[in-house]
Amino acid sequence: MKLETLGRHILIEYYNCDEEVMKSHELIEKYMNEAAAAANATIVNSVFHHFNPYGVSGAVIIAESHLAIHTWPEYGYAAVDVFTCGDTIDPWVAFDYLEKAFGASRSESIEVPRGMTEKIRKFHPRGEELGKIVFKPEEN
Amino acid sequence: MKLETLGRHILIEYYNCDEEVMKSHELIEKYMNEAAAAANATIVNSVFHHFNPYGVSGAVIIAESHLAIHTWPEYGYAAVDVFTCGDTIDPWVAFDYLEKAFGASRSESIEVPRGMTEKIRKFHPRGEELGKIVFKPEEN
Repeated sequence: MKLETLGRHILIEYYNCDEEVMKSHELIEKYMNEAAAAANATIVNSVFHHFNPYGVSGAVIIAESHLAIHTWPEYGYAAVDVFTCGDTIDPWVAFDYLEKAFGASRSESIEVPRGMTEKIRKFHPRGEELGKIVFKPEEN
Repeated sequence: MKLETLGRHILIEYYNCDEEVMKSHELIEKYMNEAAAAANATIVNSVFHHFNPYGVSGAVIIAESHLAIHTWPEYGYAAVDVFTCGDTIDPWVAFDYLEKAFGASRSESIEVPRGMTEKIRKFHPRGEELGKIVFKPEEN
């Protein structure tokens, strides 16, 4: 059985992470960008914010969708999203990369298909005319 | 029964949206920021990108987590995430706002709890000492 979707989205909970990493705007931004690159993503832009007194939030926009993070250093917890489109990128590489970088002793994940092509066609008034519904990489 | 979590995350699929809106970097950025404000979020920063030839991707970092979007104008489809923390913000207001702004004729959603406090405590080596695990708003 093959599920046709535009994207796949992994929702990750990293537990018992390194508190110093979770606190560091610089390290979180670095590791999130490195995780995107390791997964073979094309990085477009990113935005990160350090909260007072604790925690970092941010997102990396990639040509193939995005990565996002919110950290709670005081609890050793980080919520991460890795949303990817197309077949040239492997979100689980980013998962593994961050698990190691954060020193998480436990990780949990859910994978959710995003943009199921059958539904996009079904709910579109000219669904039959849409042709093959696929993720197309950006043109230069 | 009451579930204790740091955040709640709504994954939304908007179908059969207005193609002109889905194409417009300017409108997508405007509507995403307005949706965040309508939900009572504190906007920290945002980043949006227009793809060649089609589609817009972006994220709005809010003090209470983030909103993210990817649009496929040619299919009338948008994938949106609304991730919020704390009790002062209602992610469903953002859901309703965007559904209307995009002219989506069909919307589907999943809500996923993020940062379940029982698990954070369970997987933390000093879990019993963590005190009450709650989302704390940023201090000025």
